[in-house]
Amino acid sequence: MSGRPELSRAPLSGADYFAVEFDPERAEIVMLDQRLLPVQIVYYRYAKPDQIVDAIRDMVVRGAPAIGIAAAYALALQARLERGDERSFLLAHGVAGRILGRARPTAVNLGWAIARMSTRAAAVAKLPWEERAQRMQAEAEAIHTEDVAACKAMGRLGAERVPERATILTHCNAGALATGGYGTALGVIRAAVALGKQVRVLADETRPYLQGARLTAWELFQDRIEVEVITDSMAAYFFGKGEIDFCVVGSDRVAANGDVANKIGTYGVAVLAKEHGVPFTVAAPWSTVDLQCASGAEIPIEERSRDEIARLGDLVLVADGIGCRHPAFDVTPARLVSEVFTERGAFSPARGETPAILLTPRER
Amino acid sequence: MSGRPELSRAPLSGADYFAVEFDPERAEIVMLDQRLLPVQIVYYRYAKPDQIVDAIRDMVVRGAPAIGIAAAYALALQARLERGDERSFLLAHGVAGRILGRARPTAVNLGWAIARMSTRAAAVAKLPWEERAQRMQAEAEAIHTEDVAACKAMGRLGAERVPERATILTHCNAGALATGGYGTALGVIRAAVALGKQVRVLADETRPYLQGARLTAWELFQDRIEVEVITDSMAAYFFGKGEIDFCVVGSDRVAANGDVANKIGTYGVAVLAKEHGVPFTVAAPWSTVDLQCASGAEIPIEERSRDEIARLGDLVLVADGIGCRHPAFDVTPARLVSEVFTERGAFSPARGETPAILLTPRER
Repeated sequence: MSGRPELSRAPLSGADYFAVEFDPERAEIVMLDQRLLPVQIVYYRYAKPDQIVDAIRDMVVRGAPAIGIAAAYALALQARLERGDERSFLLAHGVAGRILGRARPTAVNLGWAIARMSTRAAAVAKLPWEERAQRMQAEAEAIHTEDVAACKAMGRLGAERVPERATILTHCNAGALATGGYGTALGVIRAAVALGKQVRVLADETRPYLQGARLTAWELFQDRIEVEVITDSMAAYFFGKGEIDFCVVGSDRVAANGDVANKIGTYGVAVLAKEHGVPFTVAAPWSTVDLQCASGAEIPIEERSRDEIARLGDLVLVADGIGCRHPAFDVTPARLVSEVFTERGAFSPARGETPAILLTPRER
Repeated sequence: MSGRPELSRAPLSGADYFAVEFDPERAEIVMLDQRLLPVQIVYYRYAKPDQIVDAIRDMVVRGAPAIGIAAAYALALQARLERGDERSFLLAHGVAGRILGRARPTAVNLGWAIARMSTRAAAVAKLPWEERAQRMQAEAEAIHTEDVAACKAMGRLGAERVPERATILTHCNAGALATGGYGTALGVIRAAVALGKQVRVLADETRPYLQGARLTAWELFQDRIEVEVITDSMAAYFFGKGEIDFCVVGSDRVAANGDVANKIGTYGVAVLAKEHGVPFTVAAPWSTVDLQCASGAEIPIEERSRDEIARLGDLVLVADGIGCRHPAFDVTPARLVSEVFTERGAFSPARGETPAILLTPRER
């Protein structure tokens, strides 16, 4: 399926394009192939949960919140397919959840969404299959709409910190395409623009997958927000020239001590921001915060394949026989993170604050 | 011409492959098209100085010392073509030199080689054209062989500073392909290996032209030196893991105060090295030192085209209509440069030393 996707209802993302949506009438998950942007806009329709595992692993969909939402919809699909009794439903759900959970290791949102769907599965397992499936779908949709709302809330919060006139550096894509819609880091940028601030963006191209060049620049261009693409290696040059006023990125996991895992290259941006006295901020929904994870040292860093570095399309960048390293994420220590924006509020790891300050009294 | 090039004499580079050589029998400059590596090994033969201007501008040949040598050979060719009197010889030489000098702005070696050839041109202008051409050729060959000797001398010097067991990070290609032969930064690495040190190399891929992935990895692989390629954005990750013990890069211009211009991304490596307490060193021939240039602020930084960022081969990485920035070089301030190795000796900009300490009493 190509071009603008047809859905049986308005997309929950609230935008013309989206990473992932559910089409209840056809019982299909509709997903944009982000590997083909910006040249081709191709949406796929998936009717089986297994296809979502492949789509996550092969990066048809990427971005921590978006893969959580995709997994939630996969489990909603699973609930439609399994029409047996309570036991078979929970068994099938459990297997599907475990397989989905292994698709990618670093983003905690995946495990978070699966856990939330499992809590719901346990609560609805006894219901007749159609009602059960309906409740599972409603839970996945809630995860999706809450994510969009979270992006808007953290966007408003982050936007207050953006200077009135600012060149903002961002790394990778933490936009509508990485979330349920609106975006985390790009949500901050969109909200700053909505406040009337004079914002221009430098987008790191973000090798090897080029999410900055292909996705972030494309998204901002759609919204008519001024953007220029630079190679990752140029950020230092523009910091040195004093051209960068503010940094904002997304995250795949925030540890209890305020360490932040994000796309490989983020740590280097944070070091440069500190060296040049520029705020380095992170926007992430609460579902990205992992209080079970004491520090960044405990966050599993996905190692992806050599060929994702050595080749690009048909081009051979590194001769056969020569090795490449490919950590897909890195960890930025809390001391370099000026502020983290969530839908619950902000905290400053650099000033010693941890996400725990945002817990409700009941959660503590 | 493809594969191993035929020359009417042994290559002055002293290696199986080379960036640029002169073939006196056929009066041709033979040049490897570095844009096609590592997939294709294609050598071109040029009989006209104008072709060398294009080859430098279009990056068939790159690397500060190599483009200086290419320009010297171009002026030697020019001397063969201009058989008129002293005045026409000097006129033709001057025009050719000015056009060559504008091909690329940042590397001072280009201007240095042209100036040296012009001094020789003035000295030999009165001679019969054949003898004059012979002297010009000899001068270009001297520039070439002296560069190879300089690489070996600075290599020995730098190799002493490499730890007995070391993972060395390098950026771009400062190897045999960037010089007359042997290499500056890769000369240090080759000499460390020759001393029996246990060396492995992490090569930044070096976007946008991927000289690290395509050239540095290929060169080291030919020499059976252990090398792995990383994206530029991964250097911070490996610094953070404590995996990098030493950094060495080349240079396009060293200012009188010890500031160092080099391939875009070098400044970021230097900031990371400082943050992690790793030596950041530079290897460059004396022809790269520009004592007329007080500081890095005076070094012209070449801006290359948008499409070199936005496209790679036939791939579109950034959608049409979206801008890119493309500074091709950056300047690393002296305070971040632990040591500069030249054929005259070493100096430490970080400790306040400048290249002037290597001047002879007569030069001061």
